[in-house]
Amino acid sequence: MKIAIYGYGNLGRGVELAIRQNPDAELFGVFTRRDPKTVTTLTGAPVYAAQDVENYVGQIDVMIICGGSASDLPEMTPMLAKRFNVVDSFDTHARVPEHFANVDKAALLGAHTAIISAGWDPGLFSLARLYMNIVLPDGKDYTFWGRGVSQGHSDAIRRIPGVKDARQYTVPVEDALAKVRAGENPELTTRQKHTRECYVVAEEGADKTLIEKQIKEMPNYFADYDTTVTFITAEEMKRDHSELPHGGQVIRCGETGKDGNHKHVMEFSLKLDSNPEFTASVLVACARAVVRMNSRQIFGCKTLFDVAPADLSPIDPADIRKKLL
Amino acid sequence: MKIAIYGYGNLGRGVELAIRQNPDAELFGVFTRRDPKTVTTLTGAPVYAAQDVENYVGQIDVMIICGGSASDLPEMTPMLAKRFNVVDSFDTHARVPEHFANVDKAALLGAHTAIISAGWDPGLFSLARLYMNIVLPDGKDYTFWGRGVSQGHSDAIRRIPGVKDARQYTVPVEDALAKVRAGENPELTTRQKHTRECYVVAEEGADKTLIEKQIKEMPNYFADYDTTVTFITAEEMKRDHSELPHGGQVIRCGETGKDGNHKHVMEFSLKLDSNPEFTASVLVACARAVVRMNSRQIFGCKTLFDVAPADLSPIDPADIRKKLL
Repeated sequence: MKIAIYGYGNLGRGVELAIRQNPDAELFGVFTRRDPKTVTTLTGAPVYAAQDVENYVGQIDVMIICGGSASDLPEMTPMLAKRFNVVDSFDTHARVPEHFANVDKAALLGAHTAIISAGWDPGLFSLARLYMNIVLPDGKDYTFWGRGVSQGHSDAIRRIPGVKDARQYTVPVEDALAKVRAGENPELTTRQKHTRECYVVAEEGADKTLIEKQIKEMPNYFADYDTTVTFITAEEMKRDHSELPHGGQVIRCGETGKDGNHKHVMEFSLKLDSNPEFTASVLVACARAVVRMNSRQIFGCKTLFDVAPADLSPIDPADIRKKLL
Repeated sequence: MKIAIYGYGNLGRGVELAIRQNPDAELFGVFTRRDPKTVTTLTGAPVYAAQDVENYVGQIDVMIICGGSASDLPEMTPMLAKRFNVVDSFDTHARVPEHFANVDKAALLGAHTAIISAGWDPGLFSLARLYMNIVLPDGKDYTFWGRGVSQGHSDAIRRIPGVKDARQYTVPVEDALAKVRAGENPELTTRQKHTRECYVVAEEGADKTLIEKQIKEMPNYFADYDTTVTFITAEEMKRDHSELPHGGQVIRCGETGKDGNHKHVMEFSLKLDSNPEFTASVLVACARAVVRMNSRQIFGCKTLFDVAPADLSPIDPADIRKKLL
């Protein structure tokens, strides 16, 4: 399958590398909104101008769209789904129904297939929640994130005057995690589930006390959490915080039996050195499923919930059964 | 959907209880090879003779077959798949290709749909292995079982002369588990992964030293493991070992990135108070998928690998996306 990448940031670079790990996938090239001459790819893949994308209809089996969920994907994915099979990692949970409907309409117009909201959350974590809810209808589930870098929260800190650079780690509260794993089904507030660790490089002469106060009181992002702020140098930032690790846990505890007297705890967890590279690996697997579903005339918008797991794998179904069942 | 249970042991009773947790499912009744008059069901469901099963063609949407993998299911599932949609929990990994082929042939003859090898291993653990292999093509996976009761191993001990009752727990080796979780990708022998704890009630006057020797040297079952044998009284057996807990972990560690320098650890784990009740919950979800696939004229033998997760859920797809994505 010939895959094109639309948008070339951390995630796009991750897709470029992930394609090399999938022998049935080939990289057609990268589309960018920047001047293509200024973009050099990691593997030497050709770079095209995003505005010329329509010229490549018929040459690409599937387009992996690597844009942001706030403003890029709501425009890009429907626009591209009219002309190509597409995969995106749209992650604004509250706006999924709207995005799904827009992409579905566009994909059906062009007889194309789309998978939206692929990655690990949404994505593999969503799958874990679904399988767990199916198997244990009477229960309660919890999602913990971290320890890992939240790019949205890091960006929010960077927008504060006097901040030169920032990195924010989301950290699950160990005590809460232990209670959930023990099957206690606790009621947990936002504050009881996660803490936020901020590492900040301040501009020279900036009022650090004021910056710390502005971070800790920022609504939605930090006010509801126990937040720590540590000022570091630009060198320390580069040395200690240049990677993008992440991860987390989905846990469901539920009951079965005559009097609900048997408890069961299910857990899915991830510990990732590179959030964008891992997300990219999921996107490439979804690209494979999109191409297969399209060849069976299954059109429109899908999510991982609609994809038979075997369709994500490059391995022959009989071999999968033999090796992995 | 009207579900019938074929075979009424621990698993059949689990299915009977699980159906009560699924509002879209209704229990038609239980088929048994025993005299139906001698069988009382937990919920008062009607009991029928297994030999009369053909009389009920057309009245049952799906049959959940609760027999043993050694001799029951290889006969029962193909026989029943000719006449009904079916689900089984066939768990002899090495014989899956053969069983799949037999069931596929029978189901296609009758335009029925079958899911085989459902449960947690094979079943949810197989799914975990598949998703993990898809997302991390370059890596290594491990499955640990326990701490939990292995019925096959308990039965093997019971067949030793002088043994009145026995319970065998499979226990993962903590040190091995820790190395795998740390991403060390160790090479582990059978002995390094699991130990076996045996609790045995001996008949009066039996030679305990001989029993212990016979257990520890039993090929396939115990010889390759560090095995401990503890003799207990029938009262202790009843008090401390009457439940059937189980569980385990599937863990995969793999790499991504330009030089494979980013490591990722994925883990799926289960801690189950009741192995048969949890397995039964998976079977009921598969019964739902079988009925849906059959109504779409998808015939033949399938496994969980072929089932879109949304087809296992009683919840409307738009609601699933809204709540769980």
